[in-house]
Amino acid sequence: MQKIITLTTDRKQGLYDITSDITALIKSSKIQTGIASVYARGSTAAIMIQENWDQSVQHDVISLLSKLVPSGIWEHDHQDNNGDAHLKSGLIGASQTIPVIDGNPGLSTWQNIFFCEFDGPRQRREVVVTIIADK
Amino acid sequence: MQKIITLTTDRKQGLYDITSDITALIKSSKIQTGIASVYARGSTAAIMIQENWDQSVQHDVISLLSKLVPSGIWEHDHQDNNGDAHLKSGLIGASQTIPVIDGNPGLSTWQNIFFCEFDGPRQRREVVVTIIADK
Amino acid sequence: MQKIITLTTDRKQGLYDITSDITALIKSSKIQTGIASVYARGSTAAIMIQENWDQSVQHDVISLLSKLVPSGIWEHDHQDNNGDAHLKSGLIGASQTIPVIDGNPGLSTWQNIFFCEFDGPRQRREVVVTIIADK
Repeated sequence: MQKIITLTTDRKQGLYDITSDITALIKSSKIQTGIASVYARGSTAAIMIQENWDQSVQHDVISLLSKLVPSGIWEHDHQDNNGDAHLKSGLIGASQTIPVIDGNPGLSTWQNIFFCEFDGPRQRREVVVTIIADK
Repeated sequence: MQKIITLTTDRKQGLYDITSDITALIKSSKIQTGIASVYARGSTAAIMIQENWDQSVQHDVISLLSKLVPSGIWEHDHQDNNGDAHLKSGLIGASQTIPVIDGNPGLSTWQNIFFCEFDGPRQRREVVVTIIADK
Repeated sequence: MQKIITLTTDRKQGLYDITSDITALIKSSKIQTGIASVYARGSTAAIMIQENWDQSVQHDVISLLSKLVPSGIWEHDHQDNNGDAHLKSGLIGASQTIPVIDGNPGLSTWQNIFFCEFDGPRQRREVVVTIIADK
């Protein structure tokens, strides 16, 4: 089964928890054992598995990436001034593959699935979820 | 086929080679061609494909990440003092997908599959391996 | 369907666009909906989804990684002097999984698939592409 989740982002950079959408898709697929491939459609976005106990780790992710990848110093900035957003996207990666176990995402207690926005706000962002059974 | 590999980690941070476990699972699946999805269940852990000629690259991975992500300066440290471990986990990523070729992991000569521990030691860590045939 | 794409790299470090090869493989597989797992066989290489409007972002990726991972200061350099290449490979990752939508790679307008060379030039590099239908 394959579906596209859409979301709206409301700031320049941030992590958005999409776990409940993906759980709902896995349940509707009726697949008990397999994988869910999660893909961010956008070269200034990414997918990250991360803790969601409160907002602290999400804030720390943005702080870390801002330190590692400063804005305004890249060759690509001469085009559209978002070189840092592309680099953060490439560093984190567009795809993560999550196991499906007993009809649910096989996450640990503290793992959640996040869409990472690095060049927002955007009216419409797309995440492609493809669920495949193991036989 | 889906199985959970368990391991015990004996230090704060380190890379643990799990290639032989994954090779054994692929062989027992009898699948000749397809993929093996390898997933670290834990938001302070990750999966990395890396060389294992000796311990040097594993040490260098920990050194690099300690430089890029210093400990003790994160918002999340106010909760449980492991902000750096979550960030390293997010940077490296919880999942890697390896091809299955002729009933074996399709690694190059120097590639091995590592579980990355960033907040150990832990009595029990889990890696979910899902093997899927290509038709 | 599984195939190995081969390529020759002509410099020490660089990004090589392999999108058209992967699109051709997806079309020849006749699979309409599913995933394409793309895997770099080499522990000094990686796969990155990135913009390809012009060469600027590719140059910026190499600049960023050279800053984050300086060469010549790693334990592994005592073996074969390419410690930085292994670390860049581990940071970016050997695999990306791209959705297949309507018989094409489900990329956004600006996303392309790149092979990242960190220890070239090399006569022969291999990328394993495994395409799996969603049922």
